[in-house]
Amino acid sequence: MRILTALAVAGTAALANARGAEAEPAGPAVRHFTLSNGLDVVVIPDNRSPVVTHMIWYRVGSADEELGKSGLAHFLEHLMFKGTAKNPAGSFSRTLATLGGQENAFTSSDYTAYFQRVTRDHLEKVMAFEADRMTGLVLTDAVVLPEREVVLEERRMRTDNDPGAQLAEATQAALFVNHPYGHPVIGWEQEMRKLNREEALAFYRRFYAPNNAIVVIAGDVVPDEIRALAEKTYGPVPKNDAIQIRSRPLEPDARTSRRVVLADQRVAQPSLSRYYLVPSYRTAKAGEAEALDALAHVIGAGTLSRLYKALVVEKPIAVTASAWYGGTSFDATRFGISATPRPGVSLEELESAIDAVVTEVAANGITDQELARAKTRLVADTIYSWDDQFTLARVYGSALANGLSVETVQGWPDRIRAVTARSVQEAARNFLDMRHAVTGYLIKQPAPPEKRS
Amino acid sequence: MRILTALAVAGTAALANARGAEAEPAGPAVRHFTLSNGLDVVVIPDNRSPVVTHMIWYRVGSADEELGKSGLAHFLEHLMFKGTAKNPAGSFSRTLATLGGQENAFTSSDYTAYFQRVTRDHLEKVMAFEADRMTGLVLTDAVVLPEREVVLEERRMRTDNDPGAQLAEATQAALFVNHPYGHPVIGWEQEMRKLNREEALAFYRRFYAPNNAIVVIAGDVVPDEIRALAEKTYGPVPKNDAIQIRSRPLEPDARTSRRVVLADQRVAQPSLSRYYLVPSYRTAKAGEAEALDALAHVIGAGTLSRLYKALVVEKPIAVTASAWYGGTSFDATRFGISATPRPGVSLEELESAIDAVVTEVAANGITDQELARAKTRLVADTIYSWDDQFTLARVYGSALANGLSVETVQGWPDRIRAVTARSVQEAARNFLDMRHAVTGYLIKQPAPPEKRS
Repeated sequence: MRILTALAVAGTAALANARGAEAEPAGPAVRHFTLSNGLDVVVIPDNRSPVVTHMIWYRVGSADEELGKSGLAHFLEHLMFKGTAKNPAGSFSRTLATLGGQENAFTSSDYTAYFQRVTRDHLEKVMAFEADRMTGLVLTDAVVLPEREVVLEERRMRTDNDPGAQLAEATQAALFVNHPYGHPVIGWEQEMRKLNREEALAFYRRFYAPNNAIVVIAGDVVPDEIRALAEKTYGPVPKNDAIQIRSRPLEPDARTSRRVVLADQRVAQPSLSRYYLVPSYRTAKAGEAEALDALAHVIGAGTLSRLYKALVVEKPIAVTASAWYGGTSFDATRFGISATPRPGVSLEELESAIDAVVTEVAANGITDQELARAKTRLVADTIYSWDDQFTLARVYGSALANGLSVETVQGWPDRIRAVTARSVQEAARNFLDMRHAVTGYLIKQPAPPEKRS
Repeated sequence: MRILTALAVAGTAALANARGAEAEPAGPAVRHFTLSNGLDVVVIPDNRSPVVTHMIWYRVGSADEELGKSGLAHFLEHLMFKGTAKNPAGSFSRTLATLGGQENAFTSSDYTAYFQRVTRDHLEKVMAFEADRMTGLVLTDAVVLPEREVVLEERRMRTDNDPGAQLAEATQAALFVNHPYGHPVIGWEQEMRKLNREEALAFYRRFYAPNNAIVVIAGDVVPDEIRALAEKTYGPVPKNDAIQIRSRPLEPDARTSRRVVLADQRVAQPSLSRYYLVPSYRTAKAGEAEALDALAHVIGAGTLSRLYKALVVEKPIAVTASAWYGGTSFDATRFGISATPRPGVSLEELESAIDAVVTEVAANGITDQELARAKTRLVADTIYSWDDQFTLARVYGSALANGLSVETVQGWPDRIRAVTARSVQEAARNFLDMRHAVTGYLIKQPAPPEKRS
């Protein structure tokens, strides 16, 4: 969900300046520059408290793994904490803890990111540390093999113990039949078991380099000082000329509607999830992604949405119903609809009601009022998000890691304002097509025939 | 279907010898030897007419392609006819035609094979030709680029113009979510468009070598003379030490039942196809694959089978109903059930009736009579197949290309005779499990919601 909601909180200073006469607050004055070794640096001044958020985003995720080596990007994220010659394992985390700082990391299909939050005076230390482990990672089997058990346990906890997560994994695999988005970020268990030091280091050397990274620094900083600090810390790290813009296998033309059913005794509450394969902000034609964001809002955001009104209020056959659009993705992405039936309502009945809502929007479009409400809400959410340093930094980091620009993020509210009711209807017609869709049914055992005995 | 039926026609001399007292005819006296450069040679004497079938099987197919380069193995099969320095394009085919010979080639997920049928006196010429093009292929863009248009046209003809083939492609992709068996042998169109000379040559150099090939020669030949001919023609071709036994990405544990629906206006006759992910002869535990062969026979071969009786005769709700097991596969494979409904019968109703048949066998097993009939038929089909030189050669070639041995093929009738009713029931219980299954629905437009307008 982190990836999916990222663009919905994009802010813009340029926009606010251009509309100075209006009451809209000014967004952050984002600065973006590139070092000579290719490192992108984004600075977001926020001087309300002497705290700084430092993030480094690598343009590499699970979708960049070779076939048969799923889980490698995430495994490497874990191994990045195993130390360098200069900073042995644990030393930096201990220092951070002593300083009252925080750190975290995560991996998606498209990026791997490392975060720290410290007081202003410790920023240089953090930057020097990340610059050091960009190329200085030291791995031995003594640290790699136990960590492999850790990620396997993470998989058991998150996926194998959770029927809903198992279904999500299976629907993702059914939606993406060729693109590596079909593989789980955590990895398939049988492949995770074979991950090793040599593969982790090869992946690291292939993808970790200044020209494949974005540093985002948000907080109580002065951009020119950050530039000097970045030159001092990250500047000496050599560029890797072998790195190119990513080109992953694409999906073939989708022609079938697919249903995936997971039945498990542990399911307390049945549910339905529908995914359509749709373009992302990077791959869509002009205006299409913005229309999909508005469409998701009209169909499935909040209690005034079409789905909620039809399924939860009017009939009522559902407990919840919602929709979302995962626009921030390097390649094709998903438009999702989820619903939870009331007791006694079958998922087939629920699905028919969802289809009726979608068909109605595709056939007859949306009202001006719905469009206006969606735009107001989407833009307002952005403005509210400026209040959160961490969110702001994440929006810019994930956007740049996914092939978008600072300007794209900043221009987003204006482009949302330009969405028309017609473009929303077109989006529903073109993209909410059953031939590009997978529907997941999560049901309590023993509804479909299970292993017989 | 070529791959799927291969093992069902295996013959054995060893077996017949051991049972000399019985009336069973002797199978072919197969000879197998390996040259010092690693080339396997299988000789099957058949002296009824002065004709020889020569086949060369490479242990490489579409499942050995890299992600994003689907179609490369099949494309290379086409390009193998573009000539060498010694035999320019077309010269060999013209020679063959002049001699009254025939030739053919085909590609599967697991192998690529080239066949010729000539009179005995031209065998050496054929062997010298195949030895030459094993490493001597010459490719220029002038021949590669037009051939790419040819395979694209082949895809349009075979797949894009045929809703049934489109559905088969989509069900295969839904069944194999990680293993490259999920990709079509012909390739995904968007990847075929990018195939080129360099990639074809790299693939050729990586996989075409004597230690990655099997030569099968069936016909009016003397094994010792073939050995000498093989040493003379293929012997000088150097081994490629980089080639290892194939290790492809495996499937994760399957936990969901999946349905794939293709609706198209061109569908004249709706149909249902069910695929279970099951082990192959190479990957199964002892006896499991033989039990699956017997199970397929009892459930779905002929008018006395369970499916036919229940669906076509008794109810009747179907026009056809059958089952098969694709045992000859390097990695995991499929157990398939197909049925065509009578007019007015829904695919859901048909599916329920199929599930009832499967559930009954899993719960209560099969009769001794059914088992005896299945064994007799499977073994008899093998004996009949000895009559066909081409089939015999193909059985041994595909078996060896898929990691089986001559002895495995020869012992097959005995292993089929050892199948018990209990092992067949166990196979149904363990493998015909909806959590490992994909069901394809081919329906006439506009049954499911299509692209809306």
